[in-house]
Amino acid sequence: MSTFMDKIPLDTRGEGDIRNITSQVQKIIQRSGIKNGLVCIFNPGSTGAVTTLEYEPGLLVDLPDALERLTPKDVTYQHELRWHDGNGHSHVRASIIGPGLTVPFQNGNIQLGTWQQIVFIELDVHPRKRAILIQIVG
Amino acid sequence: MSTFMDKIPLDTRGEGDIRNITSQVQKIIQRSGIKNGLVCIFNPGSTGAVTTLEYEPGLLVDLPDALERLTPKDVTYQHELRWHDGNGHSHVRASIIGPGLTVPFQNGNIQLGTWQQIVFIELDVHPRKRAILIQIVG
Amino acid sequence: MSTFMDKIPLDTRGEGDIRNITSQVQKIIQRSGIKNGLVCIFNPGSTGAVTTLEYEPGLLVDLPDALERLTPKDVTYQHELRWHDGNGHSHVRASIIGPGLTVPFQNGNIQLGTWQQIVFIELDVHPRKRAILIQIVG
Repeated sequence: MSTFMDKIPLDTRGEGDIRNITSQVQKIIQRSGIKNGLVCIFNPGSTGAVTTLEYEPGLLVDLPDALERLTPKDVTYQHELRWHDGNGHSHVRASIIGPGLTVPFQNGNIQLGTWQQIVFIELDVHPRKRAILIQIVG
Repeated sequence: MSTFMDKIPLDTRGEGDIRNITSQVQKIIQRSGIKNGLVCIFNPGSTGAVTTLEYEPGLLVDLPDALERLTPKDVTYQHELRWHDGNGHSHVRASIIGPGLTVPFQNGNIQLGTWQQIVFIELDVHPRKRAILIQIVG
Repeated sequence: MSTFMDKIPLDTRGEGDIRNITSQVQKIIQRSGIKNGLVCIFNPGSTGAVTTLEYEPGLLVDLPDALERLTPKDVTYQHELRWHDGNGHSHVRASIIGPGLTVPFQNGNIQLGTWQQIVFIELDVHPRKRAILIQIVG
């Protein structure tokens, strides 16, 4: 059994910034020397999410638009009444999508579909420094 | 440490087709010979999702109905304006539910609840050939 | 390779009860003696969910409120017409959020953000006895 951890630093532009981190994840798998197993991509924070998406310009608009319909900014959030940081909706969206994702790899290659990329979604309302954790077991 | 990978092929009937793959996942765990660990069930594609559901006829209607309320087909998707494949909502739904699921197993048995099954949800608008990846570590 | 499993028992108060189980997960990691790897927190049942949340009183109201807007109780559920247990919406919400979560740990410490806790969300309509599975590999 082997484990390997690394981080992917990101400077996000704030709400709705969606970053394709697939090639960075793939490089960390190769650097680990582990051939077969699972890679967990995890955001240590409560206002960001990790999932997969076909990374093309249309969906980079559609996904934030859908999140605004699902959990609108302009309803009352108790979080906002207490903390006044304007990001109650960000927290709720992050909990629903989820902070992390676990993906298989084989022969050192992450097993994604052709049109499927691993993305970090910045849900917070201002630019953030992020360090996405990449934990490999195999 | 051991790892084991296999695939579950599926021919889906298109949007809203929900398949119970629990017994196939269980058989792959047994075939692996690994007793304790994690099994990751992952769809390599951007228009399908994996989760759990009580697999009974009512919920097979309710879940697609809820997804249509959450992310309606009939709003404008930029993905559609660019690619004209009619599945902008499918991509958004897949990103929100998520492409994969990781579940514990013990003594070769997957640890689900009595009324809980592992399902693949076809979100694309036409029938698809799928190969769901089953990666075991333990 | 090592694996370790334990359970966290919970007596929930019913719908909308959100429990912070972070310190219990951390104690199980320490008890396992495993230093680096992945911990999977999984609810064996189809009407509860596991995710992360900043565990503060505002969001404990906001997240259930958002789920009621997303998947309202008062629409017709086929599950309800068949089973009359009043929890069709609970099942749908559980499938969308997801029954489990996988998180990295390093040097025996779970790698969460400062304001990020692991939570179990009771989505069923009445109090339930739960036993959340904690599976560690590393």
